[in-house]
Amino acid sequence: MATQPPWATPTNQAPEPVLKVYNTLTRTKNEFVPREGRHIKWYNCGPTVYDASHMGHARNYVTQDVLRRIMSDYFGYDVHFVMNITDIDDKIILRARQNHLVKKYRGETRALSPDLVNEVRAAWESYVRSKVGKGLAESDRPAPGTEWDAWAALAQKFQDKSWKAEGLKRDEKFEMHFSAAARTHTALATAQELLASGSHDEDLAHRLVDEATDVLSLSLDAKYGAGVTDPSISRALAAYWEGKFFEDMARLRVREPDTLTRVTEYVPEIVDFVARIVQNGYAYEHEGSIYFDTRAFDKADLHDYAKLEPWSKGNRELLEEGEGALSSGSSRRAASDFALWKASKPGEPSWPSPWGAGRPGWHIECSVMASAVFGDNMDIHSGGIDLAFPHHDNEMAQSEAYHECGAWVNYFLHTGHLHIEGLKMSKSLKNFITIDEILSRYSARQLRLAFLTQSWNAKVDFSESLMTGEVKNIESTLNNFFANAKALINQARADGPRLDAKHGYEGAELALTEVLHEAQRSFRAALCDSFNTPAALDTLRELVSRTNVYINARGKDLNVGVVERVARWVGSMLRMFGLGEGESSLEVGWGQEQIDGHAAVNRDELLMPYLRALSSFRDGVRSLAVSKGDGAAKEILALSDKLRDVDLVPLGVALDDQEDGKALVKLVPPAELVRARDEKRAQAEAKAAKKAAAVEAERQKRQQKLEKGRVPPEELFRPPNVPEDTYGSWDGAGIPLTDGTGKELSKNQGKKAQKEWAAQKKLHDEYLAWKKEQAS
Amino acid sequence: MATQPPWATPTNQAPEPVLKVYNTLTRTKNEFVPREGRHIKWYNCGPTVYDASHMGHARNYVTQDVLRRIMSDYFGYDVHFVMNITDIDDKIILRARQNHLVKKYRGETRALSPDLVNEVRAAWESYVRSKVGKGLAESDRPAPGTEWDAWAALAQKFQDKSWKAEGLKRDEKFEMHFSAAARTHTALATAQELLASGSHDEDLAHRLVDEATDVLSLSLDAKYGAGVTDPSISRALAAYWEGKFFEDMARLRVREPDTLTRVTEYVPEIVDFVARIVQNGYAYEHEGSIYFDTRAFDKADLHDYAKLEPWSKGNRELLEEGEGALSSGSSRRAASDFALWKASKPGEPSWPSPWGAGRPGWHIECSVMASAVFGDNMDIHSGGIDLAFPHHDNEMAQSEAYHECGAWVNYFLHTGHLHIEGLKMSKSLKNFITIDEILSRYSARQLRLAFLTQSWNAKVDFSESLMTGEVKNIESTLNNFFANAKALINQARADGPRLDAKHGYEGAELALTEVLHEAQRSFRAALCDSFNTPAALDTLRELVSRTNVYINARGKDLNVGVVERVARWVGSMLRMFGLGEGESSLEVGWGQEQIDGHAAVNRDELLMPYLRALSSFRDGVRSLAVSKGDGAAKEILALSDKLRDVDLVPLGVALDDQEDGKALVKLVPPAELVRARDEKRAQAEAKAAKKAAAVEAERQKRQQKLEKGRVPPEELFRPPNVPEDTYGSWDGAGIPLTDGTGKELSKNQGKKAQKEWAAQKKLHDEYLAWKKEQAS
Repeated sequence: MATQPPWATPTNQAPEPVLKVYNTLTRTKNEFVPREGRHIKWYNCGPTVYDASHMGHARNYVTQDVLRRIMSDYFGYDVHFVMNITDIDDKIILRARQNHLVKKYRGETRALSPDLVNEVRAAWESYVRSKVGKGLAESDRPAPGTEWDAWAALAQKFQDKSWKAEGLKRDEKFEMHFSAAARTHTALATAQELLASGSHDEDLAHRLVDEATDVLSLSLDAKYGAGVTDPSISRALAAYWEGKFFEDMARLRVREPDTLTRVTEYVPEIVDFVARIVQNGYAYEHEGSIYFDTRAFDKADLHDYAKLEPWSKGNRELLEEGEGALSSGSSRRAASDFALWKASKPGEPSWPSPWGAGRPGWHIECSVMASAVFGDNMDIHSGGIDLAFPHHDNEMAQSEAYHECGAWVNYFLHTGHLHIEGLKMSKSLKNFITIDEILSRYSARQLRLAFLTQSWNAKVDFSESLMTGEVKNIESTLNNFFANAKALINQARADGPRLDAKHGYEGAELALTEVLHEAQRSFRAALCDSFNTPAALDTLRELVSRTNVYINARGKDLNVGVVERVARWVGSMLRMFGLGEGESSLEVGWGQEQIDGHAAVNRDELLMPYLRALSSFRDGVRSLAVSKGDGAAKEILALSDKLRDVDLVPLGVALDDQEDGKALVKLVPPAELVRARDEKRAQAEAKAAKKAAAVEAERQKRQQKLEKGRVPPEELFRPPNVPEDTYGSWDGAGIPLTDGTGKELSKNQGKKAQKEWAAQKKLHDEYLAWKKEQAS
Repeated sequence: MATQPPWATPTNQAPEPVLKVYNTLTRTKNEFVPREGRHIKWYNCGPTVYDASHMGHARNYVTQDVLRRIMSDYFGYDVHFVMNITDIDDKIILRARQNHLVKKYRGETRALSPDLVNEVRAAWESYVRSKVGKGLAESDRPAPGTEWDAWAALAQKFQDKSWKAEGLKRDEKFEMHFSAAARTHTALATAQELLASGSHDEDLAHRLVDEATDVLSLSLDAKYGAGVTDPSISRALAAYWEGKFFEDMARLRVREPDTLTRVTEYVPEIVDFVARIVQNGYAYEHEGSIYFDTRAFDKADLHDYAKLEPWSKGNRELLEEGEGALSSGSSRRAASDFALWKASKPGEPSWPSPWGAGRPGWHIECSVMASAVFGDNMDIHSGGIDLAFPHHDNEMAQSEAYHECGAWVNYFLHTGHLHIEGLKMSKSLKNFITIDEILSRYSARQLRLAFLTQSWNAKVDFSESLMTGEVKNIESTLNNFFANAKALINQARADGPRLDAKHGYEGAELALTEVLHEAQRSFRAALCDSFNTPAALDTLRELVSRTNVYINARGKDLNVGVVERVARWVGSMLRMFGLGEGESSLEVGWGQEQIDGHAAVNRDELLMPYLRALSSFRDGVRSLAVSKGDGAAKEILALSDKLRDVDLVPLGVALDDQEDGKALVKLVPPAELVRARDEKRAQAEAKAAKKAAAVEAERQKRQQKLEKGRVPPEELFRPPNVPEDTYGSWDGAGIPLTDGTGKELSKNQGKKAQKEWAAQKKLHDEYLAWKKEQAS
């Protein structure tokens, strides 16, 4: 029996590029190699939940989501994405305790009383001394006890912000504190007047407490904070803001983590973890707190402290911020040492430990939770760049001290900062934008597009001009392209297979196909180049632009299949980036079976507006045809135009009338269509106005001419058309013979008069004709 | 300044498996290496479109679709998937010509006549001789001319299928031919009786033609086939079945090819391609046809003929089937040579060529179209295994002869055969199942699942037990799992974050997580092992079963996050296989923004049919108004009714016209509306029929009465209105006086005659009035 000829494995003549990622551990792009096949262990630093999420969160988590989608949906890795929720933290404890105390105080306040006013006033004075005073120049600072009297002058001085003009550098939070003090001052003054006039209403008392909340938070916490011992108080606050955080993430279409860990749920593990670090010789106890011994760790052969930012090792400011507002501070052996476990003071939640009641330090939680899920190594650790030092460096040191391993994290991916209009976002600069606010101005897609136009690890400057310029530009370019492509595809489907024996796959189509393939190569190369999404987006835009050129150049001869293929690929890449519809929050199945070809959806709600438009158009046509019999053509056309220009526009349906009488039907975003129609209308109106003006000018000119002909030629040389005594005698036609003095007109004068008479005759004849026309 | 410590690229300790595919060119699994990065050129043999698609098509195209989805959606290749439509083919030509001739014949047949009966009978005799006779034993075969008389005995013999019991091996198509002959025989016998009884109705004649269609197809084609020269006749048939094919594919959720090529659109390219092969010395002309010179090709150093099945080189049966029913056959230099270009006989469509009018051979089309898109090499060529020889071997030889290259196709993927309940599917075995039929019994998902449980390149035995056993089993296991998981997730969401400080990520959760990761590894390994979908499905089932065990074991303590992660991954893999919802046929955009809070709906797909209805109604109204000016009222009303009764009914939109001219718009299930409309129609028809019958009865009654008045009263008692010799004499008005014997009539007889005369006078007057009316 014959055998098959030999076969050789093909050679890849253009091997695919290798994925490289910018790794903060080397500050360069490193080839990405996972540890186990295509499985990726990925830990992302989650939020500390005590307030509303803002644009900084949006930038960070949307960007991480993009990287995660690229890794799983584009590169096909099996990603295990773990994120924590920090729900034990000094900020949470303080906020929760203060909220709790103010709420309690308010509840116990039943009437406006001198005691209440005095208590608030004392709190206010202390607030002005401790908080506002810090921001004032020595010379401006009122002497203790004189704050109330000094306030009017102070307020005057600072209200117009002249201190800014003076170039005074204030504490970042000065303005915030100042306005809190001002608000309380006003409320106090009002309350005193009310009291004087004999008012004691509970409502008025509560109003004072509400206005003075910021001031009372501090004073009440100082007095009663230590007595707040119920741990559920801070847990409830954290749970509330955690819920809000995930709601915001869902609106931003950020995928949920595969595994979510909360610090409150890992305290026993944290205690064990800390104990092992102590046991391994890298930590020491001091008065119930445990500190990491950075020098001991750094000295060990296997270890390096501060791998990410060795140059920041001694940075006091960064270190203090890392230790938290409730930290005492001065009990470390070295300045770079940090707390693993903090002895809790009264009023701070606490858990039992071998070193007494205490709570975890900030950095230890991530070490413990990531180790609990991943063990002694992970492929990727990600977070905002502001966390690199000390948080991530300390986290790595702890984990490597615990596991006694040399590399706990293989790749560290840090997202860049976010600035607003060139400035750091902060509440005091009034450019602090919550996710709620930003989503009322832009769609989740526009926001994500804005981030995609920037490198994930670069600083993003979020500005109005970025959004209304580049982002809206990209979005409408893509929207137009898709609407066009869909219309062409629908048209081709409705037409059915062409019978003209032309395949339409000629040079132009082969060229466009090659452009697509080149775009696919460039797109891959861009993503392999450390997730270069700006370059990847440029590739898509360039492809769309080349396809538009093709569509316009080929006209009726275009091959819709080639356009469809481009549009499908571009669409799939945009969806891969998370720019598509939100995923179903319950996408755990294989999807519903379709009913009549479309999935379970509220068919009524979606369709009825369209159907009403259809039906009422039909109604109109019918009633015309019935009532007017055969005289309806013009009105039918007007109805058709109304359907197109008025009824369908807000539904996002564009009907492009074609020469063959079959309109092209496009579904486009309604807003875009409204805008286009309004523009068209404005243009048409401007054109009409111009035309009307021209017509009017013409009419006036004609009128003036006609007006000139009103005088019969016979009267032209007689008063009142000439001054009395201009002429003395006239012939039968009214042409003058002598002037006012009786002197005969010269030959020239006579000639001129005759010429004028003839001209007037002509004008008058025209006038008479017009008159007759008017009369008939 | 301090520098970062050194970093080393990690080592992949469990490198991912390499993709291998079963390649018919080696009959082994070869590592898959594309030629250009991750770009894949893939050509799939499409259907020859002349009849309804069946289970064989379903198996082949669904399986190819699965492979394509794995390559693009799982492995992330950039696939260019090209498919052809064979719309020039002997089967198409014959079917189209015969359909055309029978239809024409039927149209020209106006009455049941002896000539018609004789013509059909002659056709029947010839059919029995040529088609049925082949399947009969020599002894059973009636002598020519005696078929009619022998038929009763033959029918008796074969009706009870005793020949099957006798173990007689018949031609596969015997039963089909036999039943066609039997049907025609019955129709002929009926027609002869009707003729004898004097019936000549057109309806009866058409009935005879319809029953004899199979028989007449052959005789008419033999007589008039050569005169059918309009190429649009076969093109229209092909276009119709192409449309049906893609409808079926859409219902099976098979993705459309990226590029579709039709043979009719590539004829000039085919001529050039053949000319080059001749020029390269691998083909020769004979009487206007071109044949491929397999020996010359096989002898060339660069080439091997029949790489896929060298052992089939001389297989006469396979070769003949490849050459087509209209092929003459005997003009080749070697038995293995095959036609590249066929001289067209009269009645066969033809295109100009340097060798005279002709048409392409079967194999050449794919060579030319794939070369037009891909050039001299492609990564993957796929098709059904029955195409391997001679089609694909000839296709490769042609292309390698044209390009003078050694390997036109790198990987040849052939899908396996499909059997039904253990037997080859065929019309004669009554186990021939169209896609229409199978989709009325099973869902597209169940069908796809059935194919996924089998190796793509193995023979599938499609059986009731496979569907009701394994497939329904898998489906309900998964459905139950998803339903459970969704319920658990919903419950957890409703409960909010747990406040009990338990993370629930203990040993059991770590173990289940490891089970998931292991499943992800196995799943990848299975797909890398030549797309082993049965093993991949087993992996998913095992994972689901382990997760169910976990759910049951942990009860209230379960960690819903772990379950959700499993469910999401399983769901995404099922959707990757195409088991999810059908993709939108218009998925070219990035998906719609959410509308009014309900996402995940494809607005286009849902709305476009409605909008097309709306728009084309509007188009119609407009063009009427434009072209007819003011004479369009009636036509506009007809359009309105058509919109309501024809266009909107299948969309499930009811327009109830109201008195105020504003129709009530209702959305109802389309089927209901169709049923209601059909019922209404049937009722209207029944009513009309009843009315017509009543009218007809009335008319006949009146006619009879009038008929009675035709005789003037004067003639009433004279022959021929009474027998000769009834009466002897009459008065002036014609009233009889004496009987035939001359005897005077009795008084009574006279009275009776006078009464009859008066009555007839009245009837005759009415008759005359009617006559007059008719004349005017």
